[in-house]
Amino acid sequence: MKEIKQNKNSSSSTTELVQEVARDLEEIPKESRRNFLKRGFFFSVTAAAALGGVGASKLYAQDHVDPKNLPPNNPQWGLKWGRDVNANPYGVPSKYEKNVVRRMVPWLTADKKASVSFTPWQDLKGIIVPNGLHFTRCHGGVVDINPLEWRLLIHGLVDREVVLTLEDIKRYPSISVIHSFECAANNGMEWRGPGINSLQATHGMLACSEWTGVPLKVILDDIGLKPEAKWMFPEGSDPAGVGRSIPIEKVLDDAMLVYAMNGEALRPEQGYPVRLFLPGWEGVLQIKWLKRLKFDTKSWMVREESTKYTMLEADGHALMYNWSMEANSVITYPCPERDLKGVKKGMIMVQGIAWSGKGTITHVDISTDGGINWKPARFTSLVLPKAVTRFEAEVEWDGKPMMLQSRTTDDTGYTQPTAGQLIAARGKEAVYHRNAIQTWEVKSNGEVNDVQIYS
Amino acid sequence: MKEIKQNKNSSSSTTELVQEVARDLEEIPKESRRNFLKRGFFFSVTAAAALGGVGASKLYAQDHVDPKNLPPNNPQWGLKWGRDVNANPYGVPSKYEKNVVRRMVPWLTADKKASVSFTPWQDLKGIIVPNGLHFTRCHGGVVDINPLEWRLLIHGLVDREVVLTLEDIKRYPSISVIHSFECAANNGMEWRGPGINSLQATHGMLACSEWTGVPLKVILDDIGLKPEAKWMFPEGSDPAGVGRSIPIEKVLDDAMLVYAMNGEALRPEQGYPVRLFLPGWEGVLQIKWLKRLKFDTKSWMVREESTKYTMLEADGHALMYNWSMEANSVITYPCPERDLKGVKKGMIMVQGIAWSGKGTITHVDISTDGGINWKPARFTSLVLPKAVTRFEAEVEWDGKPMMLQSRTTDDTGYTQPTAGQLIAARGKEAVYHRNAIQTWEVKSNGEVNDVQIYS
Repeated sequence: MKEIKQNKNSSSSTTELVQEVARDLEEIPKESRRNFLKRGFFFSVTAAAALGGVGASKLYAQDHVDPKNLPPNNPQWGLKWGRDVNANPYGVPSKYEKNVVRRMVPWLTADKKASVSFTPWQDLKGIIVPNGLHFTRCHGGVVDINPLEWRLLIHGLVDREVVLTLEDIKRYPSISVIHSFECAANNGMEWRGPGINSLQATHGMLACSEWTGVPLKVILDDIGLKPEAKWMFPEGSDPAGVGRSIPIEKVLDDAMLVYAMNGEALRPEQGYPVRLFLPGWEGVLQIKWLKRLKFDTKSWMVREESTKYTMLEADGHALMYNWSMEANSVITYPCPERDLKGVKKGMIMVQGIAWSGKGTITHVDISTDGGINWKPARFTSLVLPKAVTRFEAEVEWDGKPMMLQSRTTDDTGYTQPTAGQLIAARGKEAVYHRNAIQTWEVKSNGEVNDVQIYS
Repeated sequence: MKEIKQNKNSSSSTTELVQEVARDLEEIPKESRRNFLKRGFFFSVTAAAALGGVGASKLYAQDHVDPKNLPPNNPQWGLKWGRDVNANPYGVPSKYEKNVVRRMVPWLTADKKASVSFTPWQDLKGIIVPNGLHFTRCHGGVVDINPLEWRLLIHGLVDREVVLTLEDIKRYPSISVIHSFECAANNGMEWRGPGINSLQATHGMLACSEWTGVPLKVILDDIGLKPEAKWMFPEGSDPAGVGRSIPIEKVLDDAMLVYAMNGEALRPEQGYPVRLFLPGWEGVLQIKWLKRLKFDTKSWMVREESTKYTMLEADGHALMYNWSMEANSVITYPCPERDLKGVKKGMIMVQGIAWSGKGTITHVDISTDGGINWKPARFTSLVLPKAVTRFEAEVEWDGKPMMLQSRTTDDTGYTQPTAGQLIAARGKEAVYHRNAIQTWEVKSNGEVNDVQIYS
């Protein structure tokens, strides 16, 4: 296996990225290439289908259509006027994409307000998740706040207790940063074995966006933080009044008050007009519809950090304050929702995502035999700290069953564990922070299932 | 003026960015800081307003509210259930943001199908433009294509003429890259003097997104390009059949067939299901609703590159094939739509965007006196090749009139020209590629107007 240079400079140009992909493809074994080159494309779809899977591997298993069989020249598209250029002043997806939506798991929660809907990773590309598809987790429903009425109280151990308007917040310096956003319970339905057969359900409590706002350090430098302040308590405006104790080191490191995501105002589901943002940490800490920030010497031991969002270990103790999300990865194609049924044998492009709340992804390997053999994948997007990173790897699929896995390492040196390793460390009751290697079983008919391999 | 290190590594962490902003603020002159620190916040909004503009400068002109004057504790938000977590499976903005939309200029085009709508930069943050707000330029209306019926013919000087389905395109390796996207006519209404008094109208034919697709080099390596092929002709499926001749060097450098933007499928207005993508080049070249790619030895001299999209020079000659967009910048706050009326005197945070189709932004300066004195701005986002970059600079506004300008340089060494320099080089009939320094006149009442300074 050739050496793939991973974790490249995130500012590499598209030209360099194209050259890298092209070089990778030149490494496809000569035998495959020779067979590929000998093979003509000049037969119809039907003829190609009849030959399906016969002979040696074909790059991308392409069976392009003969131009002689070109369909009628799209008369309905080319011969009449389209819609008005501004038919939708705020644009919407194509009507042919209406199934690309967030989904709920009906039995998971008792009602639809204190519940969760999941990001459809099976349909997404790149690292940015559009705002309309960012997963939603609420403890008391989505709150609609009038930004002109909104106020933020900052009190406790500060030199000057103040109340800020949205206008005040926006007058501070801002920064715009791309980071992943993950619920502590992402993949949590898998602790006791395979759960719902769906990538959206197993890994859909994850998103990645560009966030804009003011660093809390800047506000605290302005109003003055007393030296004895060691914890911050942010409280939200939802009926659950969700709040969590945040250590001051994180507050002064990279915490932000954000008011925009992916260019526009925060969405109501994400805490409009202002939420707390803590790069790489559990989603629940990043309080939405922010109402106040209090500073004190001790943590508050509120409900969401004492009876909830703790991890029950095998010996009966509960682990508290496990804030930052570990390195993790999952294959997004193929997956249960986008399987290989009807897909021709040959070269397929396995695609996936890797992310870490603790640093930058440095490496991703994939396996087709459940973790016995591994080969490195290629990064195909920006590689940024505490962000989703895209990877791809060519896999020769001969129609035999596969056990597909991805395994990632971040720049802290940490490598994603197997399900068995994670259970050995945590037991099966932890609920949160499940970042074990995910296995997709590909059957010979192309069906893809969520299974678990513990070794 | 202190030295600001610009064009930092685009992979710098949020921690580093926060530290940089905090360090910058420490450089605020001591006199301002001393006056700021002496000034208590413990009076009400009304009292603060009465003191408005009195005394020395105040950091961010903040007049935070006394906590004693905290409004009622948001009873309507905290005491009743919010909306269902999945009320919108495909989410939409807050009802309070309904004015953040693309807009048309009614008199600009004869009808609403061959027309343009503009990106509302006055309302945007960060570098990513949400898909619903990406400007739209169509020559025959928005085409709705069924992706299952869509076909792409590749013919002419290739080893194998093929017809690709969307499935074929998606089986190739993909890359996901963040790039700006600009119409050649962006700012084109300003050639003869100040145009519509609106940032959305002057610079709204620009956007920036993460684009996912296959490099054309990969497809051509696969099907084989004949050595005599020097030009590519892409044709769209709109009734105008828009097409342009593209030199083979660009095709093999970084051209892509893209099918996703900002994570999800291309929007219909952007060419769903597949458009050509040419990083940094004029938008019109990047054919939407792509139907065919033909390779040949010569350019085609079609309508859109002979009678349209050429630049008439002062001597009567027309400049053809001026493909890539030059370095450019504009201040987004304040601007005509978001002026300083009612804004308290003191420190204001001037914000803007800079971009170049030819490389990476290396520097941005701002001026408050129409280009006599300049000071460097701070980058507040990723700094990527051929992409929008965000900048900010603190400005002390004492209520006197200002002539606000920004001026950028890219890594080719090119610096944005004044209006006078650009007119001297091009005349006033060029229509396209107007990248002159933009001037916003700030009046003492806070009103902001589009004006031109030629020197």
